[in-house]
Amino acid sequence: MISDRSEVTRMILAAKVSKGLKWADVAEKVGLSKEWVTAGCLGQMTFSKAQAEVVGVCFDLSDEAVAWLQIVPYKGSLPTAVPTDPLIYRWYEIVSVYGSTIKELIHEEFGDGIMSAIDFSMDIQREPDPKGDRVNVVLSGKFLPYKSY
Amino acid sequence: MISDRSEVTRMILAAKVSKGLKWADVAEKVGLSKEWVTAGCLGQMTFSKAQAEVVGVCFDLSDEAVAWLQIVPYKGSLPTAVPTDPLIYRWYEIVSVYGSTIKELIHEEFGDGIMSAIDFSMDIQREPDPKGDRVNVVLSGKFLPYKSY
Amino acid sequence: MISDRSEVTRMILAAKVSKGLKWADVAEKVGLSKEWVTAGCLGQMTFSKAQAEVVGVCFDLSDEAVAWLQIVPYKGSLPTAVPTDPLIYRWYEIVSVYGSTIKELIHEEFGDGIMSAIDFSMDIQREPDPKGDRVNVVLSGKFLPYKSY
Amino acid sequence: MISDRSEVTRMILAAKVSKGLKWADVAEKVGLSKEWVTAGCLGQMTFSKAQAEVVGVCFDLSDEAVAWLQIVPYKGSLPTAVPTDPLIYRWYEIVSVYGSTIKELIHEEFGDGIMSAIDFSMDIQREPDPKGDRVNVVLSGKFLPYKSY
Amino acid sequence: MISDRSEVTRMILAAKVSKGLKWADVAEKVGLSKEWVTAGCLGQMTFSKAQAEVVGVCFDLSDEAVAWLQIVPYKGSLPTAVPTDPLIYRWYEIVSVYGSTIKELIHEEFGDGIMSAIDFSMDIQREPDPKGDRVNVVLSGKFLPYKSY
Amino acid sequence: MISDRSEVTRMILAAKVSKGLKWADVAEKVGLSKEWVTAGCLGQMTFSKAQAEVVGVCFDLSDEAVAWLQIVPYKGSLPTAVPTDPLIYRWYEIVSVYGSTIKELIHEEFGDGIMSAIDFSMDIQREPDPKGDRVNVVLSGKFLPYKSY
Amino acid sequence: MISDRSEVTRMILAAKVSKGLKWADVAEKVGLSKEWVTAGCLGQMTFSKAQAEVVGVCFDLSDEAVAWLQIVPYKGSLPTAVPTDPLIYRWYEIVSVYGSTIKELIHEEFGDGIMSAIDFSMDIQREPDPKGDRVNVVLSGKFLPYKSY
Amino acid sequence: MISDRSEVTRMILAAKVSKGLKWADVAEKVGLSKEWVTAGCLGQMTFSKAQAEVVGVCFDLSDEAVAWLQIVPYKGSLPTAVPTDPLIYRWYEIVSVYGSTIKELIHEEFGDGIMSAIDFSMDIQREPDPKGDRVNVVLSGKFLPYKSY
Amino acid sequence: MISDRSEVTRMILAAKVSKGLKWADVAEKVGLSKEWVTAGCLGQMTFSKAQAEVVGVCFDLSDEAVAWLQIVPYKGSLPTAVPTDPLIYRWYEIVSVYGSTIKELIHEEFGDGIMSAIDFSMDIQREPDPKGDRVNVVLSGKFLPYKSY
Amino acid sequence: MISDRSEVTRMILAAKVSKGLKWADVAEKVGLSKEWVTAGCLGQMTFSKAQAEVVGVCFDLSDEAVAWLQIVPYKGSLPTAVPTDPLIYRWYEIVSVYGSTIKELIHEEFGDGIMSAIDFSMDIQREPDPKGDRVNVVLSGKFLPYKSY
Repeated sequence: MISDRSEVTRMILAAKVSKGLKWADVAEKVGLSKEWVTAGCLGQMTFSKAQAEVVGVCFDLSDEAVAWLQIVPYKGSLPTAVPTDPLIYRWYEIVSVYGSTIKELIHEEFGDGIMSAIDFSMDIQREPDPKGDRVNVVLSGKFLPYKSY
Repeated sequence: MISDRSEVTRMILAAKVSKGLKWADVAEKVGLSKEWVTAGCLGQMTFSKAQAEVVGVCFDLSDEAVAWLQIVPYKGSLPTAVPTDPLIYRWYEIVSVYGSTIKELIHEEFGDGIMSAIDFSMDIQREPDPKGDRVNVVLSGKFLPYKSY
Repeated sequence: MISDRSEVTRMILAAKVSKGLKWADVAEKVGLSKEWVTAGCLGQMTFSKAQAEVVGVCFDLSDEAVAWLQIVPYKGSLPTAVPTDPLIYRWYEIVSVYGSTIKELIHEEFGDGIMSAIDFSMDIQREPDPKGDRVNVVLSGKFLPYKSY
Repeated sequence: MISDRSEVTRMILAAKVSKGLKWADVAEKVGLSKEWVTAGCLGQMTFSKAQAEVVGVCFDLSDEAVAWLQIVPYKGSLPTAVPTDPLIYRWYEIVSVYGSTIKELIHEEFGDGIMSAIDFSMDIQREPDPKGDRVNVVLSGKFLPYKSY
Repeated sequence: MISDRSEVTRMILAAKVSKGLKWADVAEKVGLSKEWVTAGCLGQMTFSKAQAEVVGVCFDLSDEAVAWLQIVPYKGSLPTAVPTDPLIYRWYEIVSVYGSTIKELIHEEFGDGIMSAIDFSMDIQREPDPKGDRVNVVLSGKFLPYKSY
Repeated sequence: MISDRSEVTRMILAAKVSKGLKWADVAEKVGLSKEWVTAGCLGQMTFSKAQAEVVGVCFDLSDEAVAWLQIVPYKGSLPTAVPTDPLIYRWYEIVSVYGSTIKELIHEEFGDGIMSAIDFSMDIQREPDPKGDRVNVVLSGKFLPYKSY
Repeated sequence: MISDRSEVTRMILAAKVSKGLKWADVAEKVGLSKEWVTAGCLGQMTFSKAQAEVVGVCFDLSDEAVAWLQIVPYKGSLPTAVPTDPLIYRWYEIVSVYGSTIKELIHEEFGDGIMSAIDFSMDIQREPDPKGDRVNVVLSGKFLPYKSY
Repeated sequence: MISDRSEVTRMILAAKVSKGLKWADVAEKVGLSKEWVTAGCLGQMTFSKAQAEVVGVCFDLSDEAVAWLQIVPYKGSLPTAVPTDPLIYRWYEIVSVYGSTIKELIHEEFGDGIMSAIDFSMDIQREPDPKGDRVNVVLSGKFLPYKSY
Repeated sequence: MISDRSEVTRMILAAKVSKGLKWADVAEKVGLSKEWVTAGCLGQMTFSKAQAEVVGVCFDLSDEAVAWLQIVPYKGSLPTAVPTDPLIYRWYEIVSVYGSTIKELIHEEFGDGIMSAIDFSMDIQREPDPKGDRVNVVLSGKFLPYKSY
Repeated sequence: MISDRSEVTRMILAAKVSKGLKWADVAEKVGLSKEWVTAGCLGQMTFSKAQAEVVGVCFDLSDEAVAWLQIVPYKGSLPTAVPTDPLIYRWYEIVSVYGSTIKELIHEEFGDGIMSAIDFSMDIQREPDPKGDRVNVVLSGKFLPYKSY
């Protein structure tokens, strides 16, 4: 019996390697962005019934696993507060080095509030560059103002 | 005597409020992006002599402070490993929730390596939206591959 | 020179004791709820110019301090990640003990998403009770759904 | 053999998904609030014999599991001191940002003491709102005064 | 200007050494137990106006300091989560080694609930013993039951 | 094969629930206080051969488990440095709030040294009280003086 | 089913001991440095198909394990942030003691930027010395400059 | 009065910027490597009387400061266990990613023991490279074997 | 298959209890001190082939386990950075309380350097004393000087 | 006004350097061991009036400082839980690597209990050795048995 969404994530990861699948292909079958679908497969987003069934077919999941894909997971995909993996650490470093800058500039433009991480989307693309290709990421989050009451 | 770049950051913050300056205006005077100039003023980047002098004029800094702006700082702008400020926390949350997704998709496209946080730029813009304006951020980092040796 | 909002908070706390003020009276002069005004005085919210000037009069603040009240602060009012003060700890305990319950019930009613801590208000009242008066707190936060993209 | 209440929580979570149950329906069968019953099923509260038997029927639990539901659990439902899940983090953020405010206002009204997290109840409701429905939560805790001795 | 109760604690500690006072004598003048009065002087309890004035006389405190003694402090008297001082560590060790035992025995006798640390008193006495005198401590806390709702 | 005392603790806890035993009854059979016997069963104290055999009979333990009860365990009964369980946390809070007070008063009475947590006993009793029964705990520890050398 | 690269690392370690293999010999078969190949076998680098097959033969790995060797791992080889093993701790100590020196000297020579840990190689050799042989390690990392934008 | 070596480090850093000195030039005057002299100036090594006097002249230090340079400092040059500065972090990352590899290879060559961080030297050089200059670092530490006894 | 030395430690601990062995007897059979042999059996030292075979006979270990005894382990025998077990904590306390004293006195006698924990031996003996027997421990570590270069 | 023993420690350290004193000489004047006297001067032990006056003369302390030397300090001499200084870290490492061994051997000889860190003395000596002098440390602590009750 499955008692935790992370067990389904492990099943997906095992199947992905043994079947040689690509996230982009799974996303195409689901009909949504590769960013959102991958996050869902990694246990960070919640699939609708129809989406979960497509994912289930891709990874040969049991009905029980497909049911768990529709359950809101406990989110947070990293094993430590400061990530050890170099690729993910660079993102943590951007937050660490540029965090106060981001705060100042958003407040200067919008006033007090935040950039939502819920009403949010992300798009990751390869940007060809003769000096070495670049990773180009667009983050879009709704500005949510603090209001007095 | 100044013995730490963070003392200069405090001088800049005090002057910014008492003089009512905007980061965008300071950046325009320096002639570079608001993101990089703000990060520099907040003690995360190193100014050239010419740049430091412009910053010094903007914030009425002493010669000693201007000299310190040209010294490479000890970077990291946040007081705790997990940031408490809600605006900055949302960025930490993006890394936490989407970290494994970003890793999977960059590796799927580029193979093993990282997105550089050094050969890196950031652009923060307001994106008008009838359902509420959005913060639109473009991150661009060179892909650096791991190679065998 | 003031270089940090927390210096203004300390000025306010010192003046509050020496002048014997009450938060509720300050809030009434500002014309907003006691919850929001107190949070602002404690360095967690941003005042408008008019509000800041009222606060400045209440606590005999300098013009520079009044200017800082209009600057968005770095938020987070507690000195440690797990609070040691018994009153505040009980709230941490509620999150610890009921956290998974709150998550389950909000998801059961609304689906995947969060209760906003930004589009949020709080009202604290005394509820008379013959067995001992109670603290009654109403928290209201907009539900923000995760959406696929 | 079951040696820990958390094993029963996992059984309940597995059964809930495979049987498609709702916490509100389980609570109705137990005859108590959805908040308390869910907290109990998640291993944070202690059921009476009669309550435990109803819960056992709902989730097809063994007699041994039903016995464990009547044992006081080791409480605390979160895997880390600072929660990573966005929904639960927002509650932690409320404590972090408003903690000192809550402390000031309760003391201003009641004097030194705490709001109990034991003689406590919670009620979570959907509040319809044309700008987006809200989560409305009422927390009620007995005020417990410190006394000199 | 005093902006924090801990400044008053430091004044009291400095005066205590330079004047050679004893906590028991101060407590006798205040007319309460040595445990509660010492905790108050160390910034953990709140004095009434009359009590604060007696304390102020004992330690030659200013009016402003006496006013701060009547303000509810941010509690927690230790600089680290795990105390380094051997005397205080032994108490932490008692909680660590006997914590699960205390929990089992209180629940066996009273059911689910806690022993209050608010409606609480403590009495520390020397117990003469031919094999070496003992520290005898009586802790008395009201039992507060969890109730279903 | 058992390779850790904590495995025996889990066996005892499983048997206690399935057999419906009480710690006080087990202690009576062992012929010692309920505090010490419970601590021993929870893996914090070491039983003699005769005591271990009585415990083994109570909980239907194997010979191997009975042998392990006579092995000095690695002590410390809590899963985190700051306990999350509300009952145990209140004890941690007592150490946090009263720690500096306990230190001052023991030193005032005895001079420099500690209250032993080894030459130590604890007695937990219900104290009837019309305003609500109280938990009464007597801690007795030998005073151990620091000496110069 | 394998769901995590660390399972393959454990298989390799088990096989290495039971078969009595040496890292240098495995590296020779793979045709690359012992440093990179060992890091790969320990789950820190990604093998090409051809390399993975050689590694698979050396350690008698299943096809599934060989497939996992070609998947980019979640990096970071140590169980704690501050390593407890004396050999590895000495390296942490070098970073701790010499960290600020390394920073100053690289900046003095190159300006603001970093020494890459990705475009990086390491060579560990025995250096004979009559007073006791030495470990000689050459680290080579590309300098990556911060640039303004 | 100076009561801590770190005060001297701050004096040196302030003088270095205001006088525009280079570590390499200071080292040349002291007559030792730039690595060791910089570490000494940053409070990690102990100078002899003659060396300290040269350093004192370079940075215009008082006699008291020169005396402190001859006192063994409390070592460790970083403000947090995991460094936030990107240049220093890359070294931490090398330890994290390659730590187990370094351990395996040193043990394979030398048996059980460590590479000394005391009988140790470091040499940092620029290595010209048409694809971008590299930082070349040679670490040399005596191998110290564990022996049975 | 064994993939970690700690599995062998668990086998040894299980066998030691079931067979009723003493460390001193095992050490005698190995022909070395009880301190070193016990540390080896607990996974902190590396046995030679001959030593490992003696240990294997004592504890009825498999050939594979005997092979692992000859593999250098990842050292560090405690589950938390600050040990919870009272016996081990007292040693941590000695380091905490006397750490700065040990540092001052070794530097006063030897100059800058350390006392080796590798070229090190330990001898633990019972010292009879009419006021209560004492534990007498002799630590001997080679002094390793820092040298300039 | 002095409000904390650590201020006196700083005065002593400043005077020691400016006057060029040695701990051994101070200890001789006090008439006790260098270990205990140094620990006292570093704020870890409590001096009698006569001892404090000798210390005061050695370091030219004020009467107020001499009074503070007779106050029991808050003990613990290290700034972090895991010490960064190499000399002190080696002691932490001994506890980490040998901790479980020390525990096993003391229990094998004495049964359950601890080696006291209070009824404790330490003696540090240079042990001449042709292969390099050694630091020889004798620790003597009374064994304190756990007893059942």
